[in-house]
Amino acid sequence: MRKKLIISYDGTNYGGWQIQPNRITIQQVLEEKLSSIYALQKIRVEGSGRTDAGVHALRQTAHFDEPLRPNLENDKIFRAINRMLPPDIRLVSIEDVPDTFHARFSAKGKSYVYVINSGEENAFTSRYSWHYTRFSQLCEIRKCLKILQGRQDFSSFTVERSQIESAERLITEARLISKGKYIFLCFTGEGFLYKMIRSIVGTLVFVGDGRLKAEEFKEILSMKNRSMAYDTAPPHGLFLANVYYEGDEFGKFDIKKLPIPNK
Amino acid sequence: MRKKLIISYDGTNYGGWQIQPNRITIQQVLEEKLSSIYALQKIRVEGSGRTDAGVHALRQTAHFDEPLRPNLENDKIFRAINRMLPPDIRLVSIEDVPDTFHARFSAKGKSYVYVINSGEENAFTSRYSWHYTRFSQLCEIRKCLKILQGRQDFSSFTVERSQIESAERLITEARLISKGKYIFLCFTGEGFLYKMIRSIVGTLVFVGDGRLKAEEFKEILSMKNRSMAYDTAPPHGLFLANVYYEGDEFGKFDIKKLPIPNK
Repeated sequence: MRKKLIISYDGTNYGGWQIQPNRITIQQVLEEKLSSIYALQKIRVEGSGRTDAGVHALRQTAHFDEPLRPNLENDKIFRAINRMLPPDIRLVSIEDVPDTFHARFSAKGKSYVYVINSGEENAFTSRYSWHYTRFSQLCEIRKCLKILQGRQDFSSFTVERSQIESAERLITEARLISKGKYIFLCFTGEGFLYKMIRSIVGTLVFVGDGRLKAEEFKEILSMKNRSMAYDTAPPHGLFLANVYYEGDEFGKFDIKKLPIPNK
Repeated sequence: MRKKLIISYDGTNYGGWQIQPNRITIQQVLEEKLSSIYALQKIRVEGSGRTDAGVHALRQTAHFDEPLRPNLENDKIFRAINRMLPPDIRLVSIEDVPDTFHARFSAKGKSYVYVINSGEENAFTSRYSWHYTRFSQLCEIRKCLKILQGRQDFSSFTVERSQIESAERLITEARLISKGKYIFLCFTGEGFLYKMIRSIVGTLVFVGDGRLKAEEFKEILSMKNRSMAYDTAPPHGLFLANVYYEGDEFGKFDIKKLPIPNK
């Protein structure tokens, strides 16, 4: 039976989702724990996609195929895995899915939220937000977010792209929510290029602090050339908020679940 | 000139407030950084009181006496110290106070908040709350909180007490706030005995899960004997919320500043 997992993690102490040498990754920890409840049989966990080192997830999705035996109830797996996982990785849910379900290939879309703290630094949110005090041109930022919506070529906002693949992606929603001194940049789309959100945010802060106008931002996008944009934003402000499949309500996620105080 | 400091910290990675061998403490880090901006002269930072290893603070208070030279503006000290401090310790404010001000002896009262997560474990709040799912008898808990108010002998809820000192303390407010699956136990009083809040909470969870009635809780308090109570609650759910001095509004603190998601 194939099992669908929804996983939440604080990415601070991990080398990202995908298994790699030298750093502990989320995928690796999950595979190890699953393997140990299945009598040490190798379990391969397939995620909806990578998240980079330091990036967090409210709801990452993955799947694995259970071995023939032992046959374990989902409820039992849920409790056992959560007992074994470190506190900064939590299994949110586990359910049976048809063998045709694939965490990556069946995904219809994703949402990301990037958190900016434009106020005083905070001892409790430095792991979960980018401290950028001059992020004040919210009206101009909103214009840029409007520009980003729709299907277009995002070559200006990605890195390490193979030239053969298309850089066209559809962003269905790009929205700014402001709560006290925290600013949430929310993006929903069919899919995103590598480091696309962090590249966009890295340029948006130049709009936020007044050094760039929305018109110029639009020009950078239309150049389809990475070298036109600015540095990528740091990983610790980024959350994978949700992954959508057939039947899921597109663009639905809850910023109230972010570990950001109300004030 | 004497300077009053308000400091916020995530206590997870520290051996508490007070300097001690073998573990890094908040007081030690502050003294080191202050010393380095005052040309390596020894600076002694006096706190309003200890917080134990793993306990957090929204607003801890401390004072120090600046050396004769160099003479530094508070604004400059504020920025320099916050640049040097690790991200999980933040200086919230610095101001000049008369030499008669003493962070500990001038304190008129303190507030503490203990956070309980009675829902699913959460990858982002495990550092800031005690996961205790059977904490559901909120009405009975509220009865206990009422019992705790007023001036009385709290011998049942402290440890390592010298028998000479009085164990009488005044709790002016003990309140439960429930927000989703998170429960905030808020205590304000003139002063608290060593591990008093954690001792109270450690017994309150037995009321919360139905194993103890408010009447029995009252009896434990009236016994004035530590051996009657239960284990102390773990440190990571506890926040020193505020310290009050002459002129401060007593009992004023903001649970919205806690690093707990809204949902």
